[in-house]
Amino acid sequence: MVGTAGEPGARPGLATHVDDVRLLPEELALASRNHGMPLEALRYDVTPVGLHYLLIHFDIPVLDPEGWRLEVGGLVDRPLSLSLEDLRARPAVTVPVTMECAGNGRTALLPRAVSQPWGLEAVGTGRWTGTPLAPLLAEAGLRPEAVEVVFTGADRGMEGGIEQDYQRSLPVAEAGRDEVLLAHELNGRPLPPQHGFPVRLLVPGWYGMASVKWLRRIEAVGEPFQGYQQVRSYRLRRDADDPGRPLDRILPRALMVPPGIPDFATRERIVPPGTTRLEGRAWSGHGPIVRVEVSADGGVTWSDAQLGEPASPWAWTPWWLDWEPAGPGRHELRCRATDRAGNVQPEEAPWNWGGYANNGHQRVPVVVT
Amino acid sequence: MVGTAGEPGARPGLATHVDDVRLLPEELALASRNHGMPLEALRYDVTPVGLHYLLIHFDIPVLDPEGWRLEVGGLVDRPLSLSLEDLRARPAVTVPVTMECAGNGRTALLPRAVSQPWGLEAVGTGRWTGTPLAPLLAEAGLRPEAVEVVFTGADRGMEGGIEQDYQRSLPVAEAGRDEVLLAHELNGRPLPPQHGFPVRLLVPGWYGMASVKWLRRIEAVGEPFQGYQQVRSYRLRRDADDPGRPLDRILPRALMVPPGIPDFATRERIVPPGTTRLEGRAWSGHGPIVRVEVSADGGVTWSDAQLGEPASPWAWTPWWLDWEPAGPGRHELRCRATDRAGNVQPEEAPWNWGGYANNGHQRVPVVVT
Repeated sequence: MVGTAGEPGARPGLATHVDDVRLLPEELALASRNHGMPLEALRYDVTPVGLHYLLIHFDIPVLDPEGWRLEVGGLVDRPLSLSLEDLRARPAVTVPVTMECAGNGRTALLPRAVSQPWGLEAVGTGRWTGTPLAPLLAEAGLRPEAVEVVFTGADRGMEGGIEQDYQRSLPVAEAGRDEVLLAHELNGRPLPPQHGFPVRLLVPGWYGMASVKWLRRIEAVGEPFQGYQQVRSYRLRRDADDPGRPLDRILPRALMVPPGIPDFATRERIVPPGTTRLEGRAWSGHGPIVRVEVSADGGVTWSDAQLGEPASPWAWTPWWLDWEPAGPGRHELRCRATDRAGNVQPEEAPWNWGGYANNGHQRVPVVVT
Repeated sequence: MVGTAGEPGARPGLATHVDDVRLLPEELALASRNHGMPLEALRYDVTPVGLHYLLIHFDIPVLDPEGWRLEVGGLVDRPLSLSLEDLRARPAVTVPVTMECAGNGRTALLPRAVSQPWGLEAVGTGRWTGTPLAPLLAEAGLRPEAVEVVFTGADRGMEGGIEQDYQRSLPVAEAGRDEVLLAHELNGRPLPPQHGFPVRLLVPGWYGMASVKWLRRIEAVGEPFQGYQQVRSYRLRRDADDPGRPLDRILPRALMVPPGIPDFATRERIVPPGTTRLEGRAWSGHGPIVRVEVSADGGVTWSDAQLGEPASPWAWTPWWLDWEPAGPGRHELRCRATDRAGNVQPEEAPWNWGGYANNGHQRVPVVVT
C-alpha cells in the first residue's frame, strides 16, 4: 500500500504510508539528518554529547546568544523579555532526564507512516541544567483564564503543506510542574546547537516533541492551541480523518545493549558460549520502573532482571541478567519493562496512523558460536 | 538488480547491490546508527561535537583510560608501550581537519552497494589535538625494511564473513607525514567515545577509513598488509573479482547550505524572492581549493563564487555567492570545486563496486515563491 494525500495539506503524489519494508527516498533523507543513539551507548548513565538521539524537524537555526531574547507574553499581567544572562542568573537545577522520540519504533509498524524511519535508537539521557519554568510564569503573572502555554522555537519550515515555526503547547498544569525547565546546559556545557542553543524547554517524562528547542517565545493562551504539531502531528489516530488523542507521557520500554560482536551489514550479533551478561536500561513517563524481564526464547519464557538505581526519577533504570545459552545456534533475545503504574510493555503495540508510541518488545537475534 | 554472494566471504542470500532507490532493512539498520552532518552545519568553521559525521563499523568500545596502552611494535628496534599520560605529555599540535567518509554520496550510484547509505552528509571538520606520529616512530627505531605501518582499533566484529579487529595500514612515507597525528582531543576536549576515545589516528587529506579510532596497536610490517579493510573494502573496483586500487586522498567536493526553509518530509527548499546568499564549503585532499562555481540552471551556466580562507591547509574552504533568482518557480542549484592539482568535480562520478568516492555535483532543488 502506498497511500497518498490522506493528510489535509499533504503534497499531492507524496506517499503517506507504505507497507514495503524498504525505505522511500524522503525517508532516507530524514534518516541521513536525524541521529539515533547506537544501542551500545545504553551502557552510559548519561549519554555522551553526540550520541543522544536527535530529531530536527526543520533546520538547526543559528542564533546569536547576545541578541537572543525569550519573550513571555499572552495572558500574563507582566510580559517579560529575558536575555540569556537573565535566565542563567536565575536559580538552576541539574537533572538527568531520559528523552525518547514519540516515533521511536516506527519502522516496525506496517503500513509505515512516511516520516523519520526510527528503529529503536531514538532515545538518550542528558544531564540538563536549567531554571524551573513555574516561578517564571508566576513572576509574569499568569492569568487564571489561561488554559495552555504555547512554546515557539526558532526553527521554521513547511510540514503538511503549512509553513510554520515549530510550536507546541502544554496545559497550564503540566507547564507548572516543578520539573519542567528552561534548559541552557547539557552535560555541564552550554547546549550544543543541535539540542536547542541557547535555551530549550525540557518536559521530563513526556516524549521529546514537547521539549521545544531554540525557544524564543512563551505565550499563555485562553483556548487550546491549534498548531500543526499539536492537532495534526503527534497524535494517536486510527486514520487521516480521526482527530485522535495527543501523545504525552512516554510508555514503558526496556532496551538491551546488543551482546557480543556485530556483523557490519546485518548487525546480527555473534556471542561466545558460556555466560553472557545482558544489560540495558528501562524507562517510563508514567512512573518508576519496577520490573524488567528477559526472554532468550523469543518470548516463551521470561526471567526477572536485576534493577539498579536510576540517576534521577526522570532517568532510565539500569538492569542486568547473566544469561547461559542453552547451546550454540540462533536465539532471539527480548526484554520488557513494567512501571509502577502497572503498564507492561506489550509484545506488539497497536498500529496507528502516525507510527507513534510503538513500545513493542525489542528483538535481538543472536548466534551463539 | 539484487546481486548476491559476489563478494568472497559474503553471507549467502545477502544482497550486495540493489538498483532500487528504496533501502533494504540492513541499510536502514546502518543509517540508524551512523550519523551524517545536517548540511546547514556547513555554516561552522569547526563542526560542533555531535554534528560531525560518524561511521562506526562495529560497536563503540568502552575503554578504560587508566588501563589503556598503545603498543608500538613489529619492525622497530625499541618497541614501546605508552599510556594516555605518556601521549598527552608529548609535544602536541592542534589543527582543524576536514574528514569525509569514502562512501559519501553512495546512494546516488546505482546499482547501489549495500552498505551505509550516505547521501552527502558524511563530512565534518574537527579541531583535533594530538602528537605527531613520525617522531614516535623514530623513537621506536623504525627499521629500513618496514614498508607499511598497520593500525589496529579496539572495535571488533564480522565483515564479509571474517571476524576482525578494525585495521588499516599506511605506507611508511604516508605514516611519516608531519601532519599525521595520534589525536586525543576534539574541539578542545577529550575525544568523545564515538570519535575514538582515548586516542585515534588522524590522517589529514585522506578519506576517514584511514583515521583508525580506539587505537591500541601500531605495527611496522615488511609486506603490504592484507587485512579485510585494506584489500577487500575501501577500494575502487569494477566488480567483485577486480582487486582494484585502494582509496586514499579525498577527491574535491563543494557543498552548499541548502538555502531558504525546508519541507519536513521532502527536504525541498522554499526560498523567498530577491537576493539569496548561497554559501558553503569546499575541500580536497589533493591540494587547496582554487575555484568554486555555482549553477542555478541545473549545470548549464556557472558563476564563480567568492572564496574565503580555510582554517588550516587541511580544513574546508568557505565560499559564497549572492544569487538573484530569474523568477518564481523551480530551480536546480549546483556547485562544483576545483583544486590546485587541477581536479574538477565531475557532473557524475564513475560507478564502482563499493560505491566510493562519488564526488558528483550536489543538486539542490528549490522553489522560489
